[in-house]
Amino acid sequence: MSEIVASYLLHDEKGNFEKKAEGIALGLTVGSWTNLPQLEQEQLRKHKGRVVDITPLEDCDRVNNYLEQTTKQAIVKIGYPLSNYTNDLPAILVTVFGKLSLDGKVKLLDLEFSQEALAAFPGPRFGIEGIREKLKVYDRPLVMSIFKGVIGRDMDYLTEQLRAQALGGVDLVKDDEILFDNELTPFEKRITEGKKVLDEVYKEMGHRTLYAVNLTGRTFDLKEKARKAAELGADALLFNVFAYGLDVLQALREDDDINLPIMAHPAVSGALTPSEFHGFSNSLLLGKLLRLVGADFSLFPSPYGSVAMPLEDTAGITYEVTRPLHTYKQTFPVPSAGIHPGMVPQLISDFGVDSIINAGGGVHGHPDGAVGGGKAFRAAVDATLAGQPLEDTNDEALQKALELWGAVKVKG
Amino acid sequence: MSEIVASYLLHDEKGNFEKKAEGIALGLTVGSWTNLPQLEQEQLRKHKGRVVDITPLEDCDRVNNYLEQTTKQAIVKIGYPLSNYTNDLPAILVTVFGKLSLDGKVKLLDLEFSQEALAAFPGPRFGIEGIREKLKVYDRPLVMSIFKGVIGRDMDYLTEQLRAQALGGVDLVKDDEILFDNELTPFEKRITEGKKVLDEVYKEMGHRTLYAVNLTGRTFDLKEKARKAAELGADALLFNVFAYGLDVLQALREDDDINLPIMAHPAVSGALTPSEFHGFSNSLLLGKLLRLVGADFSLFPSPYGSVAMPLEDTAGITYEVTRPLHTYKQTFPVPSAGIHPGMVPQLISDFGVDSIINAGGGVHGHPDGAVGGGKAFRAAVDATLAGQPLEDTNDEALQKALELWGAVKVKG
Repeated sequence: MSEIVASYLLHDEKGNFEKKAEGIALGLTVGSWTNLPQLEQEQLRKHKGRVVDITPLEDCDRVNNYLEQTTKQAIVKIGYPLSNYTNDLPAILVTVFGKLSLDGKVKLLDLEFSQEALAAFPGPRFGIEGIREKLKVYDRPLVMSIFKGVIGRDMDYLTEQLRAQALGGVDLVKDDEILFDNELTPFEKRITEGKKVLDEVYKEMGHRTLYAVNLTGRTFDLKEKARKAAELGADALLFNVFAYGLDVLQALREDDDINLPIMAHPAVSGALTPSEFHGFSNSLLLGKLLRLVGADFSLFPSPYGSVAMPLEDTAGITYEVTRPLHTYKQTFPVPSAGIHPGMVPQLISDFGVDSIINAGGGVHGHPDGAVGGGKAFRAAVDATLAGQPLEDTNDEALQKALELWGAVKVKG
Repeated sequence: MSEIVASYLLHDEKGNFEKKAEGIALGLTVGSWTNLPQLEQEQLRKHKGRVVDITPLEDCDRVNNYLEQTTKQAIVKIGYPLSNYTNDLPAILVTVFGKLSLDGKVKLLDLEFSQEALAAFPGPRFGIEGIREKLKVYDRPLVMSIFKGVIGRDMDYLTEQLRAQALGGVDLVKDDEILFDNELTPFEKRITEGKKVLDEVYKEMGHRTLYAVNLTGRTFDLKEKARKAAELGADALLFNVFAYGLDVLQALREDDDINLPIMAHPAVSGALTPSEFHGFSNSLLLGKLLRLVGADFSLFPSPYGSVAMPLEDTAGITYEVTRPLHTYKQTFPVPSAGIHPGMVPQLISDFGVDSIINAGGGVHGHPDGAVGGGKAFRAAVDATLAGQPLEDTNDEALQKALELWGAVKVKG
């Protein structure tokens, strides 16, 4: 059957989940059923939602105390026929989580798409394999660093920071997501000047670094701006997708004149995912849906830092962006924030070789600056893959990093 | 000072809100401060965020029990200089609630815009006064009804429902928000056939009903589709703004070739607002921001039904969309769901004359069908404004409605 099956976590004081599920399946599709004449039932049958599964969960005292009443929980799965909506994400979200998002305590955990439903979504244009091909790096996690403190600074400041990061050997550098169009460091100039710097570094040391420039502005100007970026030779786009919409990222992905890797930043997504009772699961929003619409990279808070996401959520995202699904390429998982070189063994243990090690302070805060930071990360990656404890390496930059930040003992 | 001041509700176990606030004000603007050389401080001063206010709140046992630790609460206000971002909503949201939305328990309660910041936003094109002008109805709440059970139905079914609703005397009819482009009732045909029906009703009884057609599809096709709707003589657009983005609604509002009232539906907004700890306040998201970007109507769950929003939230939205602000027109507040004619005195008491009384089941479920439902609502409005108890009227449709649903005694 061509449908999308939505899984919800429901909290309900009455706990009559059979009735509630049937109410959702009908209310969000044909409206009513049992009182319809036989002929109308036959006409409408292909539009009727169906209750796929109801799994009651254990009561939770913590939740009951908070809600100040005994509350039942269940995971409920509802199937919505594809014939009810156009196969675009706004229509899908309005169908499966439009009015329902406002109906008490309901969190959308997952969407399972039939093959026909998946066919409407492109998946990443480049994906992990395409990004690796651009960099000619196939067998290790990539290392990325982030511009820091760039608001109010000029092009010289930016290009100097970019050069230092590239010289340290990082594979990718991304704009700060809060850097918008401005007179000191305009979008086009960041692309062209950045390109010059990175080409110079490549000539000097044979190392290729890609720079993801922040695509910002009004929604309806984004395509033209992204095309311009491609023309100017940009390497990749950083995109604050949750300040716009998943469908906008999909449109950028589908435009052949853009043809650039897209790095999805999680800014604003914290308004949508952390509640126990409402919103979206991280594995769906930052995982499956970002992959479907075509993000080549999904950034999310690492489970280690002060701005942390629970490990099971980061694992869920990583699973969804890399598991076999339809004909889609894989999206790079990018756990971010609170990362220093001493954490590389833990990162590789948790996220695997097909992930990106992304750091800001852990690169720029190195005693030898961003050059030393990048070197330390690269050395930590090599040592970890060689099975060598970080403390046993003789890489000077790495040892300085370990003195400053320590080496994290890997937890299982 | 040209800035936007954001108010956050913070929950934090440590409760060192001075440090936390300073960390936000710097971390989301210039990055660092005290360790910068004097010269750089001078250059960057106009970009530095500032802590505007910190108001500690009482501890809450309910919250402490839920979080399983003693947690401090405060409302913290941070000012972000306009010179840091382009004056569009995606940039503003990424600045004030991008990374921060992911940083523990933080809810965005309000944004206060300086006059310069407001100037970038259009506000409603028609607003309450423009909609009243279209209808020539100046001194009472408007009555709106909603198509019901239209998925899988054909144009005859729709036009018949539309005619019945209009004959009952409702001022507005809106599409079901889950009705997308489909072969049976295509967008353009809904406009042209709907227009025919409503013109006929106008000729028959001199009553004008406006029909809001659901604008759906891929983001980058919306403008052209909306222009086509305007060309075909559509009365208004229904728009699931939270499945797209506030900036998309703004772009539709700003396009002079569209020139139609825009009705913002709250679908999917339940993923963003109901948590105590995360997301947006309703008064900001469904109130102030919808008005700034130009919604002529803001729909939200009424405080009365099974899908209910707290009364203080619905009051907050109503305040924000109607209070004097900049040069903006007012947006119609549209409390929805769970409304029947017996509730009209309560609705007018809570939302005033400048509001819209919106019902689905309360119109279609009337013993005399949608015609009777519309008549009952109109009679209830007239009686309430005349100070007459609903039970004392001799309107047959209203009395039948009261028999079925009862009359709600007005509370406070």
